[in-house]
Amino acid sequence: MEKILAYIEKNQQRYVDELFELLRIPSVSAEPKNSGDVLRCADRIEEFLRDAGVENVKTVDTGGFPFVYGDWLHAKGAPTILIYGHYDVQPVDPIAEWKNPPFEPVIKNGFIHARGVADDKGQIFAHIKAVEAHLKNGGLPVNVKFLVEGEEEGMAGHIDDVIEKHKNLLKCDAVLISDSHWFSKDLPSMCYALRGISYFEITVRGPKKDLHSGTYGGMIMNPLNALAYIISKLQDENGHILVPGFYDDVLPLTDSERAEFKKLPYKEKEFCAELGIRETWGEKGYTSLERNWVRPSMDVHGIIGGYTGAGPKTVISTHASAKISSRLVPNQDPEKIKALYEDYIQKITPPGVSVEFQWHSMARPVIVPYDNKYVQAASKAFEATFGKKPVFIREGASIPITITFSEILKAPSVLCGIGLPGDNLHAPNERFSLSNFQRGIPCFAAMYSELAKV
Amino acid sequence: MEKILAYIEKNQQRYVDELFELLRIPSVSAEPKNSGDVLRCADRIEEFLRDAGVENVKTVDTGGFPFVYGDWLHAKGAPTILIYGHYDVQPVDPIAEWKNPPFEPVIKNGFIHARGVADDKGQIFAHIKAVEAHLKNGGLPVNVKFLVEGEEEGMAGHIDDVIEKHKNLLKCDAVLISDSHWFSKDLPSMCYALRGISYFEITVRGPKKDLHSGTYGGMIMNPLNALAYIISKLQDENGHILVPGFYDDVLPLTDSERAEFKKLPYKEKEFCAELGIRETWGEKGYTSLERNWVRPSMDVHGIIGGYTGAGPKTVISTHASAKISSRLVPNQDPEKIKALYEDYIQKITPPGVSVEFQWHSMARPVIVPYDNKYVQAASKAFEATFGKKPVFIREGASIPITITFSEILKAPSVLCGIGLPGDNLHAPNERFSLSNFQRGIPCFAAMYSELAKV
Repeated sequence: MEKILAYIEKNQQRYVDELFELLRIPSVSAEPKNSGDVLRCADRIEEFLRDAGVENVKTVDTGGFPFVYGDWLHAKGAPTILIYGHYDVQPVDPIAEWKNPPFEPVIKNGFIHARGVADDKGQIFAHIKAVEAHLKNGGLPVNVKFLVEGEEEGMAGHIDDVIEKHKNLLKCDAVLISDSHWFSKDLPSMCYALRGISYFEITVRGPKKDLHSGTYGGMIMNPLNALAYIISKLQDENGHILVPGFYDDVLPLTDSERAEFKKLPYKEKEFCAELGIRETWGEKGYTSLERNWVRPSMDVHGIIGGYTGAGPKTVISTHASAKISSRLVPNQDPEKIKALYEDYIQKITPPGVSVEFQWHSMARPVIVPYDNKYVQAASKAFEATFGKKPVFIREGASIPITITFSEILKAPSVLCGIGLPGDNLHAPNERFSLSNFQRGIPCFAAMYSELAKV
Repeated sequence: MEKILAYIEKNQQRYVDELFELLRIPSVSAEPKNSGDVLRCADRIEEFLRDAGVENVKTVDTGGFPFVYGDWLHAKGAPTILIYGHYDVQPVDPIAEWKNPPFEPVIKNGFIHARGVADDKGQIFAHIKAVEAHLKNGGLPVNVKFLVEGEEEGMAGHIDDVIEKHKNLLKCDAVLISDSHWFSKDLPSMCYALRGISYFEITVRGPKKDLHSGTYGGMIMNPLNALAYIISKLQDENGHILVPGFYDDVLPLTDSERAEFKKLPYKEKEFCAELGIRETWGEKGYTSLERNWVRPSMDVHGIIGGYTGAGPKTVISTHASAKISSRLVPNQDPEKIKALYEDYIQKITPPGVSVEFQWHSMARPVIVPYDNKYVQAASKAFEATFGKKPVFIREGASIPITITFSEILKAPSVLCGIGLPGDNLHAPNERFSLSNFQRGIPCFAAMYSELAKV
């Protein structure tokens, strides 16, 4: 290991330079105009893998953006680890709020700033460099496969079919996913449970043409009034979701989990100050962490309808729409939740308007028991590099692919992300700790060695 | 009168051609990019007035778009009538829904199609031509003043101050306003009551930056959820507005009014078919006409927040806003309603978000008793031209200036509009009956003669 660590130490400036190259590619998979950039990013990942000494590097067609594959399978008798990441990034909207152009990376106050640096380019790149450090210094102690996809942020939904189709190519004993973050700055964390999601859009339609609100106001149901009404009926003032049957399959919070969470250094006041809010809010009877990790939620992500220009316009518009999702917890089933939402919304839709649904994405919630041997092995590398045992936490977000790995590859996912809170994922001014990037490389290098012993 | 009517008959084609010229000017007062067009339209009105023989024609500065003034004051001993109209028009949004470009007038199936043709260019132009017919044939039997303003649709709010400032110039015995429409195609109507309005915009603010709905969902109040909640609390499922004190000053519907309205040929089924809705909706205990004419309403005109592009984005946004108004009925006071709305919304705003108000426009409701002598004189011209006594109706929309005329000029407004239902005011495909335009000119010419006898 010393040789490997010395190699990494010597190459840190090159790693940053190469990562910057990757960050300059605006690989926004949801934006049709960036298609060429997304493909260019895949090519660059291929080159980095080849340069690292990874073999059989290729892009694999998915029907959408390709995934990049590569492997090194010469560790006879050792387990095979699939390293998963994604090279596509979120849209940059609202662009005006970025302090630095999103695709011109800079280092400020110990953080690299750029769209996609934490989610997930910086994290997958740290794995590539950790593998490189082994391969340039005698080879890996485990067998490694890379799966770096380009549709994670676009939610185009090809990856499940693709993994099914290539399940022999991707066969492994465990999956390493570095796409999550620590509980706090100096508290290395491993995540053992993720929420799922049901994400849909509703469009409420009323009159077939725009109407004058004086001439018609009071006589007909206004689609914008109706949309607000429908949304307001999804959740009550105690944060309880009102869709009948919604909570039927929710695993209750256990006393021991509640006790574990209480030990974490969560500071409500600092949390509010960081977000610029006076107080938190959520389901009655639960703490903020419990609400985010163990309880389902309901958020409106976007809403639009009628006249949204400057000044007044006295119009009753033909339609209005909203993007809405519920984060789901074990054992809620997104398909069942979809049916419950549709039934309920149809029932509460006011007279004189109709409602249409469009389903954008669904993912099941996931739990990986943290006594799993791969999880435990990975945690040792965290401890060795960062000097303290990681805490085992849950996470409010979704990584839908973890359930796919479990179901199709029959492999547990080890969530060993090295992001930090405040990294602004999916938001303006995304960032990634330079120190975690630079310590992440030796940490992952050590992790492969620990996994070899399993 | 015969000479005048013959003159009008002979010139009908020219009137249409000249009106088309006016309609081709995109005088959208709410759009800064159209400022030049609005001013050009004022110039053209000036020219038409001068060509008609009107004297002292000029534009008068208002701080915003000017009003056009002109007079003819040689009918000694006769009353002075102020003819009011506006040369500005509504925005054309949503432009894609226009079957014909909004500023390229065409005649189809007996209607002139163009933005602003009914509201209000066609109507004020008919007055200009009726005045011309008198002046080219010996002079007017009454004294006439023109006030054609350019800020009616922009609601910039200068006109009240301007009328105050120029009240000597505008001094009159009665005002003729042709900016309303008939109850149905063959039922000449005169409107005796208008609703007022309180129009505001609320912005709900939450976290200071966009957040990932996985990482934060369930822990904080989402401004979009909150906005929907606030809107839903403004009106209940029976159409009753929930703002405390809102109905305190509402004049109840009288039994005799209810009986009069019942006689009008309102057909619920045809009304729904025309709008493309399954059913009407509104305040329980009232008919559709009563809801629109005699009861206040609450409509959301525009709503926007968060991610409104294609596909999903799992964001909790910083803010969301909505444009909302209530139409008001006698004796509601818009200033009082403003205070009631603000107090109530502040009270119901959920924890963790704040709300800001912007007030766009306010207008008091109006009633002009229909036994007024000027109203009765005008109605005789309707009967003479259109062959039946006009019905006296109310109207759900606002013409804020009527209250200004009453308060500052101490003059009653006579609402002698010749639009038809379905003219698509403030909406795509605005139109105006060619026949009502062409019969409107002799009708108004006769109206001046009737008013001379008062």
